[in-house]
Amino acid sequence: MGRMSQVTCDLTISLDGFVAGPNQTPADPLGDDGELLHRWMFEEPEANAAAIEGILAAGAFIMGRNMYAGPGEWAEEWRGWWGEEPPYHAPVFVLTHHPREPVPMLGGTTFNFVTDGIESALAQAREAAGSKDIAIAGGAQTARQYLSAGLIDELRLHIAPIVLGVGERLLDGVENLSLEPTEVSGSRLVTHVRYRVNRDNAAGGAKQ
Amino acid sequence: MGRMSQVTCDLTISLDGFVAGPNQTPADPLGDDGELLHRWMFEEPEANAAAIEGILAAGAFIMGRNMYAGPGEWAEEWRGWWGEEPPYHAPVFVLTHHPREPVPMLGGTTFNFVTDGIESALAQAREAAGSKDIAIAGGAQTARQYLSAGLIDELRLHIAPIVLGVGERLLDGVENLSLEPTEVSGSRLVTHVRYRVNRDNAAGGAKQ
Repeated sequence: MGRMSQVTCDLTISLDGFVAGPNQTPADPLGDDGELLHRWMFEEPEANAAAIEGILAAGAFIMGRNMYAGPGEWAEEWRGWWGEEPPYHAPVFVLTHHPREPVPMLGGTTFNFVTDGIESALAQAREAAGSKDIAIAGGAQTARQYLSAGLIDELRLHIAPIVLGVGERLLDGVENLSLEPTEVSGSRLVTHVRYRVNRDNAAGGAKQ
Repeated sequence: MGRMSQVTCDLTISLDGFVAGPNQTPADPLGDDGELLHRWMFEEPEANAAAIEGILAAGAFIMGRNMYAGPGEWAEEWRGWWGEEPPYHAPVFVLTHHPREPVPMLGGTTFNFVTDGIESALAQAREAAGSKDIAIAGGAQTARQYLSAGLIDELRLHIAPIVLGVGERLLDGVENLSLEPTEVSGSRLVTHVRYRVNRDNAAGGAKQ
């Protein structure tokens, strides 16, 4: 048998647990000082090459509506924040209440829009990913939904050594999460921890 | 020149940043489910031997009043929570508003009571420690005071892979903290991260 494909989720958080600072807007989704979370990617790409590669290695991605666009009805011309060739190079499934035809981009990325919930999006992503992993790409609210439903196999936290004090916390309201660290590494701007989610204790355990 | 002695602080926190659960009392200082934070010490002492040894390696210790006893006036017979031979084996300086004569214990621990603030306690502990390190032993409020004052050189976090959801957060209200991870390690019940506190950016930088 081949390796089972996994549902992964990479998130960068501050030492006090925030994924974004205060005053988030569609144009500034990381909020005040939130860009400091991601210094490790931009200032130390070589030291963190394996972690960065892991974020984009999946065969399909799932993201929340707010990660793809601002709120409300679709602007017909909107094609995401990433330009004509997004970094995903694979199908991306966007959770939304507003149906829309798929948006193909250069380099293998196609944005697909899913209106019937997180389990449907996961089933479609799993089908599209084949033997590769499925990544929950964010944002934090989407990650919390999948974590709370017990649908994530591996949570990969990238802990930035900063204290934001205010903002959006990743784990607020997530209950019954049983985690086991399996690998740690890091650089001077980040600590990477891979956690296996124990399904037997998790909320969604009964579904497995 | 010999090695400069360092001011260290070891704390175990949950993945969502809590050092204790809700409903803390003097007899249950870790609060509800707080004991789950420390499973790594008791269930995996061999895998975590270096971290455990590091917690008690200092030449002098500083702790808050609530870590030594309950609130209020001293009960004359109170000699701490640790029995006749506490694990410190060195002078311990207890921050308090209530003067008291030193309490010598077996095995080299003496509890000294400091009523004139955190900088005085640190000066006394530094004198007592000689060339060894000085450890801020807790609790969280005391650690926050020393962190906020820029008086800690190395913060050693032991991150338990649990989500408490409610309780006392270590870093609430701590500002201007500039940290750099210098070492990571761990086991299935904990992730150890050593952080150097950058004094030039910290609140207490001007004091150095």
